[in-house]
Amino acid sequence: MEPVKVGLLGLGTVGGGTVNVLSRNAEEITRRAGRGIQVCCAATRDPHKVRSCNTEGIWLTTNPHEVVTDPQAEIIVELMGGTDLARTLVLKAIAEGKHVVTANKALIALYGNEIFTAAQKAGVMVAFEAAVGGGIPIIKALREGLAGNHIEWLAGIINGTSNFILTEMRDKGCDFAEALLDAQHRGYAEANPTFDVEGIDAAHKLTILASIAFGIPLQFEQVYTEGIGGMTREDIDYAGQLGYRIKHLGIARRVVGGIELRVHPTLIPYRRLIANVDGVMNAILVKGDAVGPTLYYGPGAGSDPTASAVVADLVDVVRALTSDPENRVPHLAFQPHALAEIPILSMEEVKTAYYLRMRAVDRPGVLAEVTRVFGDQSISIEAILQKEPAAGENHVPIIILTQPVLERNMNEAIRRIEALKSIEGSVTRIRLETLC
Amino acid sequence: MEPVKVGLLGLGTVGGGTVNVLSRNAEEITRRAGRGIQVCCAATRDPHKVRSCNTEGIWLTTNPHEVVTDPQAEIIVELMGGTDLARTLVLKAIAEGKHVVTANKALIALYGNEIFTAAQKAGVMVAFEAAVGGGIPIIKALREGLAGNHIEWLAGIINGTSNFILTEMRDKGCDFAEALLDAQHRGYAEANPTFDVEGIDAAHKLTILASIAFGIPLQFEQVYTEGIGGMTREDIDYAGQLGYRIKHLGIARRVVGGIELRVHPTLIPYRRLIANVDGVMNAILVKGDAVGPTLYYGPGAGSDPTASAVVADLVDVVRALTSDPENRVPHLAFQPHALAEIPILSMEEVKTAYYLRMRAVDRPGVLAEVTRVFGDQSISIEAILQKEPAAGENHVPIIILTQPVLERNMNEAIRRIEALKSIEGSVTRIRLETLC
Repeated sequence: MEPVKVGLLGLGTVGGGTVNVLSRNAEEITRRAGRGIQVCCAATRDPHKVRSCNTEGIWLTTNPHEVVTDPQAEIIVELMGGTDLARTLVLKAIAEGKHVVTANKALIALYGNEIFTAAQKAGVMVAFEAAVGGGIPIIKALREGLAGNHIEWLAGIINGTSNFILTEMRDKGCDFAEALLDAQHRGYAEANPTFDVEGIDAAHKLTILASIAFGIPLQFEQVYTEGIGGMTREDIDYAGQLGYRIKHLGIARRVVGGIELRVHPTLIPYRRLIANVDGVMNAILVKGDAVGPTLYYGPGAGSDPTASAVVADLVDVVRALTSDPENRVPHLAFQPHALAEIPILSMEEVKTAYYLRMRAVDRPGVLAEVTRVFGDQSISIEAILQKEPAAGENHVPIIILTQPVLERNMNEAIRRIEALKSIEGSVTRIRLETLC
Repeated sequence: MEPVKVGLLGLGTVGGGTVNVLSRNAEEITRRAGRGIQVCCAATRDPHKVRSCNTEGIWLTTNPHEVVTDPQAEIIVELMGGTDLARTLVLKAIAEGKHVVTANKALIALYGNEIFTAAQKAGVMVAFEAAVGGGIPIIKALREGLAGNHIEWLAGIINGTSNFILTEMRDKGCDFAEALLDAQHRGYAEANPTFDVEGIDAAHKLTILASIAFGIPLQFEQVYTEGIGGMTREDIDYAGQLGYRIKHLGIARRVVGGIELRVHPTLIPYRRLIANVDGVMNAILVKGDAVGPTLYYGPGAGSDPTASAVVADLVDVVRALTSDPENRVPHLAFQPHALAEIPILSMEEVKTAYYLRMRAVDRPGVLAEVTRVFGDQSISIEAILQKEPAAGENHVPIIILTQPVLERNMNEAIRRIEALKSIEGSVTRIRLETLC
């Protein structure tokens, strides 16, 4: 089957990421979607700019209207930002009978009601997973995964810039202005950071989440919005002394008499998982009456993470175009004929770090005997913890953390250590993973 | 439109939860799915047992085959557990042309390949979100939300019983046997806990996750499986001293030459979010090449959380049956004509707790003046932190945490406090949420 052709509006950070992800993972995406996905044209301000993505085979134009009307492009991906031109182009694409994928939260928060009505009338899809939480599939989770719930409330760290600044202020004890500068240097904050630090970006996203959670129209103008500009080192410090962290949250809550929609800095108990979401990461905590609390965590911005959500939407659209409804999503994600025969490794071939505990005779030289065995097996030691013998005991526990090593080599090392006269009984082993 | 009729196999914990959630949230579910969902018949061992769900209007039978062949039932929900009879009944339902929803991880891990093939041939849907991670929509996230990614690895706390036991051992310093007894008393562990504590249940779930992540056939027999029976207090303790927590993880990783599939206790750095997932909660960390690390957290078992996933699958099936592919999932989760006009509250009507900071003259009686204002506004104080004045200063910072109060009352209290002669400047306020 011919690949589905996509027209891109915008070839900046996210546009470039989308081109990269689609080409890098082309084979897997095709196996999942049942059909290839190919960018055929893209609108960009400067077609001759040096880019981080390969634009070979993509027709570039400075006129975004030409992308929308390109008869090849079945799906239009809007990644240009802003609301005026974006709205015009998205409505035009819909009128042309094209499906639309957008990462534009302001567009959806402000003009979503109009855009969705037009799309329903035209029988085309409009998808916007990338508009909230970057690569976290929170729209899908809320709209489909929790569809059986009465949603009671949700609270999210939905602006990575603000979260980075608050994390820096706490970790480095710097003030707001310093942390903002740092965020700008690292590319986490714009030269004009108003949208992020004043909470407007978070309010756009909260508008979208609340509508999906509660089934209410999008109403951005009703969100109470307070940014992080007033946060001080001392408040962060006092909050810490009282057992709290300060996070910039978007909160939507259903209470008797109505719905709360608010974006503001918030103290939360430091033991809550969401209180430990640091740096530019995002997380959304959703409380449903049936499921209880669920949390979704991941990178909330950036080229590839946002592209991840854009491509997920593209796969969704292509699956709907390609399969009958009963076979829309393959059971195991990949089309049944496209499952791969990749060998499953035996544990002997698996490489992990280890925690080891052994009981050794309390006399000089024992540790040297043990470490010699590791050396022979090319196993590097990360840390050793040796305890005093308990009263009346002449054995001491030795705890060793190793660097990653093949399980085969570790088996041999343990066999040899257990054979040492100075070691009593067997060696306890637990695998160790750093998960990064 | 007539509601879709569902036949239930099993009316135990999850079956009862499903009946309850479907009836409690009937109105919202209908607004989301575009059509009502109604249980018409259910198979149960003892039709006369007293239950926690209302079975009025549900035809009860002891013969599950009668549910499968009931001409009314378009969708069969299998919640009986076990693999032999469940397999027979699911294959029979498929042969009858019925869609199937199941929470049975063993069934999918062992017989999924056969079941999916039969379903594709018959043109019916088989959904199994509830099979992994209880109410967490992890199957949907992995299969659809991350469809643009090359998945590098995933690691999950996917057995709540084991996680509860390990958490108890750490928090209470008890040994495995005591913690297991406690889990059994609380209903978190079965009388025969083999499946949970020996890692078999986790291996079933890992089998499913790995297939979806990597596009490989289900191959339960290839999973390396180690339970938590060998864990001791001292290892948990030493791990803590070294900066690690011990969690029972299911890990699937793609490496050069193949795929690792393994379930075993694992040390992980305590600063990782997943290291702080405690009690019976589940969490799955997924690393995609584009999105980076994402984490999905929530209750991994229990009546209502599992029912949440079962009902989400039912809504999925009903949406596919009811809408054309382009309109499968409404943009804002609810059908466009079914959006609600619920008022958005003004901030004056919002109730939250507060962190307040003020600068007071350092003399006796000031605190009494401040607390009197709170008393007048019926604001309860949760904590007070009063600091020594800095050298050469005659003002001291006072920090107060309050109980939840209407913002209107707080505005008035702050107005009065700022008018006090003993208070200098304005009062800093930050809202506080416990998020539970």
